[in-house]
Amino acid sequence: MSNPFFICRGNIIYAGDRNRLTVHEDSYLVVKDGIVEGIYPVLPEQYASLEVKDYGRGLIIPAFTDLHVHAPQYVQRGIGMDVLLSDWLNQYTFPQEARFADMEYAKNVYDAFVDDLIRQGTFHAAIFATIHREATDYLFARLEEKGLYAFVGKVNMDVHSPDCLCETTEESLRETRRYLESHTSCTTVKPILTPRFAPTCSRELMHGLGKLSREFHCGLHTHLVESKWEAAEALRLFPECRSDAEIYEQAGLLENGPSIFAHVIFPSEEDVRILKKYHGVSVHCPDATTNIIAGIMPTAALQDQDLAIALGSDVGGGHQLAIYRQVSRAVQMSKLKGFYEPENNHAVSFAHAFYLATKAGGSVFGNVGSLEKGYRFNALVIESMEDKGLTLSPEERLERFCYTGDDRNIVARYLSGAAVE
Amino acid sequence: MSNPFFICRGNIIYAGDRNRLTVHEDSYLVVKDGIVEGIYPVLPEQYASLEVKDYGRGLIIPAFTDLHVHAPQYVQRGIGMDVLLSDWLNQYTFPQEARFADMEYAKNVYDAFVDDLIRQGTFHAAIFATIHREATDYLFARLEEKGLYAFVGKVNMDVHSPDCLCETTEESLRETRRYLESHTSCTTVKPILTPRFAPTCSRELMHGLGKLSREFHCGLHTHLVESKWEAAEALRLFPECRSDAEIYEQAGLLENGPSIFAHVIFPSEEDVRILKKYHGVSVHCPDATTNIIAGIMPTAALQDQDLAIALGSDVGGGHQLAIYRQVSRAVQMSKLKGFYEPENNHAVSFAHAFYLATKAGGSVFGNVGSLEKGYRFNALVIESMEDKGLTLSPEERLERFCYTGDDRNIVARYLSGAAVE
Repeated sequence: MSNPFFICRGNIIYAGDRNRLTVHEDSYLVVKDGIVEGIYPVLPEQYASLEVKDYGRGLIIPAFTDLHVHAPQYVQRGIGMDVLLSDWLNQYTFPQEARFADMEYAKNVYDAFVDDLIRQGTFHAAIFATIHREATDYLFARLEEKGLYAFVGKVNMDVHSPDCLCETTEESLRETRRYLESHTSCTTVKPILTPRFAPTCSRELMHGLGKLSREFHCGLHTHLVESKWEAAEALRLFPECRSDAEIYEQAGLLENGPSIFAHVIFPSEEDVRILKKYHGVSVHCPDATTNIIAGIMPTAALQDQDLAIALGSDVGGGHQLAIYRQVSRAVQMSKLKGFYEPENNHAVSFAHAFYLATKAGGSVFGNVGSLEKGYRFNALVIESMEDKGLTLSPEERLERFCYTGDDRNIVARYLSGAAVE
Repeated sequence: MSNPFFICRGNIIYAGDRNRLTVHEDSYLVVKDGIVEGIYPVLPEQYASLEVKDYGRGLIIPAFTDLHVHAPQYVQRGIGMDVLLSDWLNQYTFPQEARFADMEYAKNVYDAFVDDLIRQGTFHAAIFATIHREATDYLFARLEEKGLYAFVGKVNMDVHSPDCLCETTEESLRETRRYLESHTSCTTVKPILTPRFAPTCSRELMHGLGKLSREFHCGLHTHLVESKWEAAEALRLFPECRSDAEIYEQAGLLENGPSIFAHVIFPSEEDVRILKKYHGVSVHCPDATTNIIAGIMPTAALQDQDLAIALGSDVGGGHQLAIYRQVSRAVQMSKLKGFYEPENNHAVSFAHAFYLATKAGGSVFGNVGSLEKGYRFNALVIESMEDKGLTLSPEERLERFCYTGDDRNIVARYLSGAAVE
């Protein structure tokens, strides 16, 4: 029988809530059967005979969570970033997604995407694929094989979409059913429904997806009030609804959770009411909403209304997969929002942003994204990042990593207590 | 006698002006005595016997220019980024700069700073040191030794400064004179005057520096209208001036050029008139002015008024030394400025931002920052950065590098035609 214990030593940091980082300097973290058993300043007698992996001045932190990322757009990250949104979609994104009808192409891209997720320490993710079921199945299997935690969606689009990416309503529902039927056994990867957003889905499709949601008990991942155009267009197409969120509520898509909404930049009171009622998670993607000129999510204001928030890379609208970089960007964007909209408080502290990128986003997967007792030991070890002659606190070293570090500074990765090679 | 020629082959890209990138695909670049002699689709007969360094699909681009960076703040990059500006200055920046009285400490930091400049491909820079002459001399010598192009300033502060960083007026002028006297021979590194900014310099000091400027024919590098507070405080302390820029004009500091002004976020018409008259360069530091909540430079508007603009990292207000990252950030911030101030055009294209980071900033050093005939071959080679199954144009690969690449993608560096090891 293999040893159920894993013990490591270092500077252990996590964010148990949004107000502060919890730091255990030079401490021991005991993992049993992949779950954090406890953190101790001195190793308890009962573990004295076990091997300890010593990371010295390194930081031991929870792995990151990305609650909004488009896997097929991975290969277009960082190109076409100065064009208009409509050109970006038509010249880059739609033709790119259309290529996922070709399985060889899909395998290449999805393999590279999953490898980079792991490299960047993102072990929990909510992922858009494309309309293509077969390629989506491949992505699903690849994530499972690696032991990552994910919600993966086959995208639905049946109206107002380019020919190369438009399904019939029947086809969209049939393929989605087949997708859900082939992933009913419970693993760390689960299917989720991903109607692209209200403007590209007919009422019939939305309601059909609502039925599938009830039948298969699966959640929703889509875009919500991501721009003024989108918010207005959604209500024009669904005049029976008073808010973008109500479109999903009326279709019965919010009852089985989780409900994950990207961007949420212009929520109405009605949107907020529905988000609250169904415990929807609003996903802040600061790089992406800068690149696509959508604005800045009112993160602090939504949080003050007790809405759940998380962070997303939104690759390829966002250009970098590393979620730690969105931690620093969330702080930066909160400052610019405060500059331009000084009538409200928009401050997001570093601890708050780190919480969003770990425990807050992780909560949709269960106990991941923290290092509290009972959490999965899905974790990263970050090297110390101090310069000669300078001593930084563990918090400062973590902040420096999120602002200036990269995957070279991630010196070890653990999934359920096992080292990721 | 050594061979005066160096020839390389690859995808050659530079920005000759702000409107477009010039691309020579699969071409030969001939360097003679460190200077670009020409670019050819087919290697001319007369060079046929010479060795060609072939970079395949790699990009050959000009080295970068950083026109505003605080070398002593290098070790504090990426920490204290979510506190208020006053706390950032008092808790991090001022105590950090005060340590440069200690030469051992200064050597450690400046060595690391210069090494990282080279690693990130920044071969031309306008650099603030600290008030300490001896440490500034060390930085100067280190940059010279490496063959970089730089303007380096010993900082002046004689009023409204913390005790640990405040000089007497006499001391400040005496030490500056000694600094200038010891660097009169002409190299690629030159001294420049760096009064920190108007609020920390007395009228007597400013005018004393003006005299030194005339005597030693040296330029000015300071901060200008970097925040609403600074703009107002400068006029309160110098009520005889109608604008922040006039303080430097009246002191006689603008006559010997170059005049380099960081931030320039709130220029008055009078500031613009003076900037234009003296060919002042306004340095856009998008990360820094986000971090310190100052706002976003009206880059497009200043450029439309024919003012010279360049980019700066402003480490440590900015958290990253890599100027290619400020290229992408300049595009991003132009989009947010357009979102919040839609009444004016703020668009900065990728080509424009790349021009600012290369030829525009380089112009203060002479013919560096481009690969046109007659320019120094100060250049970088960037690997292709294409994903499997995807073919990107050279322009797209360059954009991707600026958005998502890092120093690992810089596979060769050249200074005056010689490889940098």
